[in-house]
Amino acid sequence: MGWDFASDNVRGACPEVARALAELAGGAAPYGADELTARLETRLAELFEHPVAALPVATGTAANALAVAAFTPPHGSVYCHHEAHILRDEAGACEFFAGGARLIGLPGENAKLTPETLDTHLDRCAAGNVHRVRPRLVSITQSTELGTLYTPGEVAAIGAWCQANGLALHMDGARFANAVAALGVSPAELTWKAGVDVLSLGGTKNGAWAAEALVLFDPERAEATAIRRKRGGHLLSKGRFLAAQLLALFEDGTWLANGRHANTQATRLAEGLLTLPGVRPITPTQANEVFLHLPEPLRQGLNEAGFGFTPWGDAGPDAIRLVTA
Amino acid sequence: MGWDFASDNVRGACPEVARALAELAGGAAPYGADELTARLETRLAELFEHPVAALPVATGTAANALAVAAFTPPHGSVYCHHEAHILRDEAGACEFFAGGARLIGLPGENAKLTPETLDTHLDRCAAGNVHRVRPRLVSITQSTELGTLYTPGEVAAIGAWCQANGLALHMDGARFANAVAALGVSPAELTWKAGVDVLSLGGTKNGAWAAEALVLFDPERAEATAIRRKRGGHLLSKGRFLAAQLLALFEDGTWLANGRHANTQATRLAEGLLTLPGVRPITPTQANEVFLHLPEPLRQGLNEAGFGFTPWGDAGPDAIRLVTA
Amino acid sequence: MGWDFASDNVRGACPEVARALAELAGGAAPYGADELTARLETRLAELFEHPVAALPVATGTAANALAVAAFTPPHGSVYCHHEAHILRDEAGACEFFAGGARLIGLPGENAKLTPETLDTHLDRCAAGNVHRVRPRLVSITQSTELGTLYTPGEVAAIGAWCQANGLALHMDGARFANAVAALGVSPAELTWKAGVDVLSLGGTKNGAWAAEALVLFDPERAEATAIRRKRGGHLLSKGRFLAAQLLALFEDGTWLANGRHANTQATRLAEGLLTLPGVRPITPTQANEVFLHLPEPLRQGLNEAGFGFTPWGDAGPDAIRLVTA
Amino acid sequence: MGWDFASDNVRGACPEVARALAELAGGAAPYGADELTARLETRLAELFEHPVAALPVATGTAANALAVAAFTPPHGSVYCHHEAHILRDEAGACEFFAGGARLIGLPGENAKLTPETLDTHLDRCAAGNVHRVRPRLVSITQSTELGTLYTPGEVAAIGAWCQANGLALHMDGARFANAVAALGVSPAELTWKAGVDVLSLGGTKNGAWAAEALVLFDPERAEATAIRRKRGGHLLSKGRFLAAQLLALFEDGTWLANGRHANTQATRLAEGLLTLPGVRPITPTQANEVFLHLPEPLRQGLNEAGFGFTPWGDAGPDAIRLVTA
Repeated sequence: MGWDFASDNVRGACPEVARALAELAGGAAPYGADELTARLETRLAELFEHPVAALPVATGTAANALAVAAFTPPHGSVYCHHEAHILRDEAGACEFFAGGARLIGLPGENAKLTPETLDTHLDRCAAGNVHRVRPRLVSITQSTELGTLYTPGEVAAIGAWCQANGLALHMDGARFANAVAALGVSPAELTWKAGVDVLSLGGTKNGAWAAEALVLFDPERAEATAIRRKRGGHLLSKGRFLAAQLLALFEDGTWLANGRHANTQATRLAEGLLTLPGVRPITPTQANEVFLHLPEPLRQGLNEAGFGFTPWGDAGPDAIRLVTA
Repeated sequence: MGWDFASDNVRGACPEVARALAELAGGAAPYGADELTARLETRLAELFEHPVAALPVATGTAANALAVAAFTPPHGSVYCHHEAHILRDEAGACEFFAGGARLIGLPGENAKLTPETLDTHLDRCAAGNVHRVRPRLVSITQSTELGTLYTPGEVAAIGAWCQANGLALHMDGARFANAVAALGVSPAELTWKAGVDVLSLGGTKNGAWAAEALVLFDPERAEATAIRRKRGGHLLSKGRFLAAQLLALFEDGTWLANGRHANTQATRLAEGLLTLPGVRPITPTQANEVFLHLPEPLRQGLNEAGFGFTPWGDAGPDAIRLVTA
Repeated sequence: MGWDFASDNVRGACPEVARALAELAGGAAPYGADELTARLETRLAELFEHPVAALPVATGTAANALAVAAFTPPHGSVYCHHEAHILRDEAGACEFFAGGARLIGLPGENAKLTPETLDTHLDRCAAGNVHRVRPRLVSITQSTELGTLYTPGEVAAIGAWCQANGLALHMDGARFANAVAALGVSPAELTWKAGVDVLSLGGTKNGAWAAEALVLFDPERAEATAIRRKRGGHLLSKGRFLAAQLLALFEDGTWLANGRHANTQATRLAEGLLTLPGVRPITPTQANEVFLHLPEPLRQGLNEAGFGFTPWGDAGPDAIRLVTA
Repeated sequence: MGWDFASDNVRGACPEVARALAELAGGAAPYGADELTARLETRLAELFEHPVAALPVATGTAANALAVAAFTPPHGSVYCHHEAHILRDEAGACEFFAGGARLIGLPGENAKLTPETLDTHLDRCAAGNVHRVRPRLVSITQSTELGTLYTPGEVAAIGAWCQANGLALHMDGARFANAVAALGVSPAELTWKAGVDVLSLGGTKNGAWAAEALVLFDPERAEATAIRRKRGGHLLSKGRFLAAQLLALFEDGTWLANGRHANTQATRLAEGLLTLPGVRPITPTQANEVFLHLPEPLRQGLNEAGFGFTPWGDAGPDAIRLVTA
């Protein structure tokens, strides 16, 4: 037996989620209009201190693709970091849901975008030009794909840039709980107060079996997205199954406790490994992911000891990722 | 307190499924390559007495849309009954996943297609004709949207017609368990032996939270469908969550017991209600759905007694549907 | 040498069009902003007695698909006659341009829809229902695919029904000139005054090489359609080539003269053939198309005499279509 | 009166094309099966010394989008230069026709790709990985968007790289005639002999009104592309109108003469302007496009003298493009 740090997807469900589902199994509720889903929306509005429409789905890819499609027409484009999950790891789901829109990957240290980068790459010739795809959305990931964080100020700067340039702002929050726990700020400060229009709020990496919420800070957009969700096959007939998992996490502080726990583990793991000879960080460990260069003998040793991790070839042959949950 | 017969989606999870998930919650497994998913495929191959590729997804709409897309190019068309769930109740999911292919609804008693109907409506001018959409798939539902059944011979006749005309055959088996239980035949006889190429095998209406399997009788087609599943946001990171539910149902006889139980309840329900004055059947009750004309006062009385059912306006203002689970 | 009545597409360009192109060949004009295109829009606004946006394209299929897409979202549906060109003869172009929307073919004598037919088939359960595709557009063809005509009153009745039910109205006017010539009414009476929102105005069958105009009676919709036109590859760099052809037809009475001439020929052709023993009409000859049942020996005789026509198998093995230009 | 060098699209039709159309105007031919289209295919097979399928269309965007879609599934990706017309100037047409595939823009001097650049950017993790879009096609432009040329050896090196890595190779030959004229090599050497699978062969910039040919060096692929062409609204009913223009150019040496003439003009123009004080080349003038830095007073002077040119902001505020035809 060893430790598996390959992903925060490897775990099953946390006790709170398992308990909630067990309690719910015997009951009954109508298709698509259950009380738990309504309660989830109310709860998230409270948590975010803002009216929201919350549409639960079973995967992060679904949440992201629906979020992108909600703000990007087929002839639109989306700016994201070239490490973005939506660009690299979702098989073109955003393009599919948005009817052939374009994702544009941009550079940036620590997997983060900045207003300067966006400003450099914005296609200013697109306005009113039928020959160009139209910039419509910026998508950032919090915490990022390389385990780093945007400060509220950094998000707000991007939000301001978006507003100034007529683009909407999406946050892929598959690890939003880790970000909030690490930054010690309110969900509101990291999202709508900083200009975020739509959030993919992660549950699966936080302890759910399969539950994410698409959170729209403009509830008026819910209807179009609800149609797209059904059309995408993402409306569960037993919708309360999703809502129950999310409520188990977000109704009280479980989400934050889970996020904090994972962060602490990651910090310790990073600190421990960095004491070993030849180990160097790739990015600073700010949430629940650790990216390191590890000399070959050490990698082999960890492997033999039953340590699970993911090779991260993009950062070199000796690079690995470890994720805690 | 009353009884809810609005849909077989209203229940939560059956005890076997709930137990399986509870046992699994604490464990861990890698993304997308877990042992349970492999075991499910092996088990379904055994159950169907044929090599299969089995791709679990969380919704019936996803299973149907991926199945249709696997056999229908964007310029292709699909013949189905005009009561078909894929045509009426999935918001165009098949068109979406198949890149704009066309569904064509056909008439037929008891919500069933026949080779004769197909023969009448087949567009024979389409072959080699760039102006026409190309017929590629027939989709039938077993048990049907009106609670009736195709006999193995009826399926086989459609299968033979499809083969003779160069179309593939899809079976929407959201209530496949009910059909097998009612007909007392093997899964093989109802599917590949009768010419079915791809089956949407229902778990959700049979006692799962959210689990269906797309069953391809030609496993070679698995790869393209697996890509489409990911691109559609339907690959769960904790895939064993789906597999575990399906194994809880299909590894032993739970699926069949659940199906049989629901059928028996429906038969009793129908028999009981048909003794009441003025009640007339719309279709024969052959599986777990009952379609009746019910005089207004009776409808009101049942409503007041806490009976849940669905008005079925297509069959007239006094028509209702009751579903057992 | 004989006469070719296979289609009104068989001719090249009429003298007016050929002359206009010859005069224009040596000149120069900027991409996408030429004076002729602007003049065409002005002229059509005058002809239709209404502000219009006019987007020239090279094919009727492009005009129809862009028109349908302008009013139908991916989750929308379009009601048309089951003989409609958009349904039968455009290989799914509307579905393609509208991102997977659905065309629904309806019955109707003489290839015509009526408010009654629409009323019978309208999916009234779709409103606010995420499970259904949403009815958004009715498309009618004038003159129809079977050579018949809608009177202005009939169009207006459909227009009123559309308005009452929240759908837009498209007219496929590939043979609009023939309809106007035959009915002796103004273009306005047949279109916006009768509730038509968008018209595919045919030039190719009227004497152009390849030129149709998408006419939007709400010019505000032009921008979105212009983007879609470019994205569909239908914006010609030498746009004046399309405009010149259409101006040659529509700037003076050429379009109407051409339409009238073709109608007269068709009437004569029908009258002549109907005097032959065993010849029976399929539909009344109201524009420039003649649909007849023709005994086999006669068909052979005409063939041998060099007469070109199209077998029309849908109306029986002895059915043919003849088209005049 | 001045000279217009804004684009090679500004001219109408060259005398040979105008004459061909004038001669053809009075004739007749059946829809989609005319003799000229067949003759064009034969002629291009001869010109390219290889069996080809040649599908005429009216725009370069249509040719490119159909070519890309022929080799790229919805989950596929296309590598091209970040200056590529398909990426920058076609409003996402390739994504539209290829069902949401992804275009990836790469850097490269003089708007040219190299095997090294491709090697650096190829996503090697995509093979067998459902999370990634799959690299399927490389697209290069000849002559390039910056007026430069690939030598046959450079094309062949890319062709070899494509073959080694399992990708197909597309050439956007909107200015193919200019490239052949400038390089003095055979069309075969620049295309299939160098590994090109599909060519967008330009006619419009070479003297046609609106005519390009999609040339497939594997004629087996013609059928799928023919369906897609119709579905995209790009099958002209009077197909001979396109074929006649292309035959007027390609049946004898007109295409080459036109290309050579434009190249010579561009060389002279560049030589002349480069003698002026402060004028610097952006890229070498190798075909019929000239890219220069021009001091502001000179730009103004040329403008006032009636010189037409296009500002080329991407290369700086003082950059301009001049194109000869």
